[in-house]
Amino acid sequence: TSKGQTLFIFSIKFHHQNSSLSISKVFEIQQYLMASGQMANEQIVLVTGGSGLVGQAIRTIVEQESKAEYSSKYQFIFVSTKDGDLSNVDEARQIFEKYRPNYVIHLAAMVGGLFRNLKYNLEFLRTNLAINDNVLLLAKEFRVRKCVSCLSTCIFPDKTTYPIDETMVHLGPPHHSNFGYSYAKRMIDILNHAYSDHFKNNSSDYGGSDNLPIFTSIIPTNVYGPYDNFNLEDSHVIPGLIYKAYNAVQDAKLKNSNTAKLLVFGSGRPRRQFIYSLDLAKLILWTLENYNEIEPIILSVDENDEISIGDAAKMVADTFNRSYPDIRMEIQFDTNYSDGQFKKTASNSKLRRYLPGFCFTSMSDGIRDTVRWFITNYDVARK
Amino acid sequence: TSKGQTLFIFSIKFHHQNSSLSISKVFEIQQYLMASGQMANEQIVLVTGGSGLVGQAIRTIVEQESKAEYSSKYQFIFVSTKDGDLSNVDEARQIFEKYRPNYVIHLAAMVGGLFRNLKYNLEFLRTNLAINDNVLLLAKEFRVRKCVSCLSTCIFPDKTTYPIDETMVHLGPPHHSNFGYSYAKRMIDILNHAYSDHFKNNSSDYGGSDNLPIFTSIIPTNVYGPYDNFNLEDSHVIPGLIYKAYNAVQDAKLKNSNTAKLLVFGSGRPRRQFIYSLDLAKLILWTLENYNEIEPIILSVDENDEISIGDAAKMVADTFNRSYPDIRMEIQFDTNYSDGQFKKTASNSKLRRYLPGFCFTSMSDGIRDTVRWFITNYDVARK
Repeated sequence: TSKGQTLFIFSIKFHHQNSSLSISKVFEIQQYLMASGQMANEQIVLVTGGSGLVGQAIRTIVEQESKAEYSSKYQFIFVSTKDGDLSNVDEARQIFEKYRPNYVIHLAAMVGGLFRNLKYNLEFLRTNLAINDNVLLLAKEFRVRKCVSCLSTCIFPDKTTYPIDETMVHLGPPHHSNFGYSYAKRMIDILNHAYSDHFKNNSSDYGGSDNLPIFTSIIPTNVYGPYDNFNLEDSHVIPGLIYKAYNAVQDAKLKNSNTAKLLVFGSGRPRRQFIYSLDLAKLILWTLENYNEIEPIILSVDENDEISIGDAAKMVADTFNRSYPDIRMEIQFDTNYSDGQFKKTASNSKLRRYLPGFCFTSMSDGIRDTVRWFITNYDVARK
Repeated sequence: TSKGQTLFIFSIKFHHQNSSLSISKVFEIQQYLMASGQMANEQIVLVTGGSGLVGQAIRTIVEQESKAEYSSKYQFIFVSTKDGDLSNVDEARQIFEKYRPNYVIHLAAMVGGLFRNLKYNLEFLRTNLAINDNVLLLAKEFRVRKCVSCLSTCIFPDKTTYPIDETMVHLGPPHHSNFGYSYAKRMIDILNHAYSDHFKNNSSDYGGSDNLPIFTSIIPTNVYGPYDNFNLEDSHVIPGLIYKAYNAVQDAKLKNSNTAKLLVFGSGRPRRQFIYSLDLAKLILWTLENYNEIEPIILSVDENDEISIGDAAKMVADTFNRSYPDIRMEIQFDTNYSDGQFKKTASNSKLRRYLPGFCFTSMSDGIRDTVRWFITNYDVARK
């Protein structure tokens, strides 16, 4: 730690011992130290849910792919369950006290598959409401400049028209199966608006209306990539297919067979927009630096890039065919399983207005890299 | 306290000192004592927000108008801010520990006029979310058999069709001016559904699916009556008109004038459904005993009974004319003030399916009694 940081830490400690020094005074000291060059210019970015699929993707981008771009400006802190329970305000406060972030990327949530959602709607609702309320409250208390929270396309109304866009989040109840999770996520957007009003009504506390904190949110479509949850019971489509394909290959090897069967639940015809986690990480970092609206922004591939589950399965099979040339992967569809919604097309028009030229990783490349990661990290992968 | 109650209190204390005795064991003991006739048969009904307009009306009904009907079955406990802050879970728990209710009528909320709502949406949202989460959580923990929470017609979507009914609560954002309050109230209905699912998924804990607790909600239209908030800046239509008429009469008396001017903001043409607080209290007690759906029920006069603000003002003026025969009240409309929504007609069809014959107090009688109460209780009335 630099001299400035030590001084700053001292000032914080002083604050704790001496209640006459207000928290805003401490921030004035911090700003003075930074302005006078005595303190590192690094801004602290706290990433909650840091060990999950998206958190790990952000870590990969900032640590490996673009080190120079981010490391001079930001210090990223990735926290996960082991650092504390964010649904408990005291534990959440300890994390904020420890890292004193300037920015927050809020990815943490209690998540689960269809079965868990159906059975534990109450827990999903109450726990996620508490996590979100605590993180946003502390972001305000610690004068975070921007807080970007992660929503989900599953929060959209069950009865809707397509494509879904950002104006439609609250236009009707979400699907009943996961209403607890969905309403808790929707409440982030409501809180963002309430905090925004609060900042406007108290703009003098923040040095004027041009300098207000921004609390906003992103809505990614179906994310896949390294570090996903590959559990067969509880996973999303792509990681589930990858793990099943992997098991089919192991089976074939054991049986000395030259064919392996990849069983896909349903007809394979439903269509989804999949986004590679590393693309999403780049877009979240762009959001952190450039997106200043309160309203959520859908982070998704284009509507034309919606593909069928069957095509996704074929890409998984092709990747395994290249990795294990002696075994031919056959796809079978088990139509005893229901298909669910045929499509959930989301519009990325708002994103495209900001970033018309952003190039998404092709599904075949993304699946290839995810399969490679899974095979290489089989022992540590969540499954 | 009876011998049974003492024994029960002992068992509760024992529970606290000895963690090996589970809370469900304590309730078994309670049920045994009640079944064996050693404990009073009175069921405890905890009324939160007990000092407000609706809480006081319930108190009036159960203590005065129908003492015999309720006093043999229930002991009503009315709690208000002075008993503890329900947004603080520890203070809320102390109230539940103290009274161990069998039923809850949850009326408590942080409320305020248009101006306060606009400025403090964040506080209204967070405080009311916390109050509601705490009360419902404790109702579950203390095995309350029914919890009836009070919503408001202001929570309905801003863009809607008329008449509004119970199926439309979540079909779009509420009016922006009080979105914090409204979303916190809506969340009660979401929690009610989540608790209901929880009870169903754990029905064996409650002695089977026929014996599950019921968490539900009511939606009253515009309530008026004794004990209202008559503050001129911050009140609803009827109490505001009453206080203005009262002041106009005092002015006229001081000036020795035989006319008094009642100034009504706007054209007087907007129409509203007003429900007298004592009628609402009776319907809430009916809900407590007879309404077993999770979905909210609108408690309102019929659609035909929607009257204009102007007609309501005339009724207020008529009442004052009878009380002060020497002073003639003239109504003036100040059309410099905007009218707000022309109507918000709510359907009471569901209520009428249950209670086709319920007789509502006429507006003229209700206003007459409210004015008399206000004049008689001028010194203690909230204003």
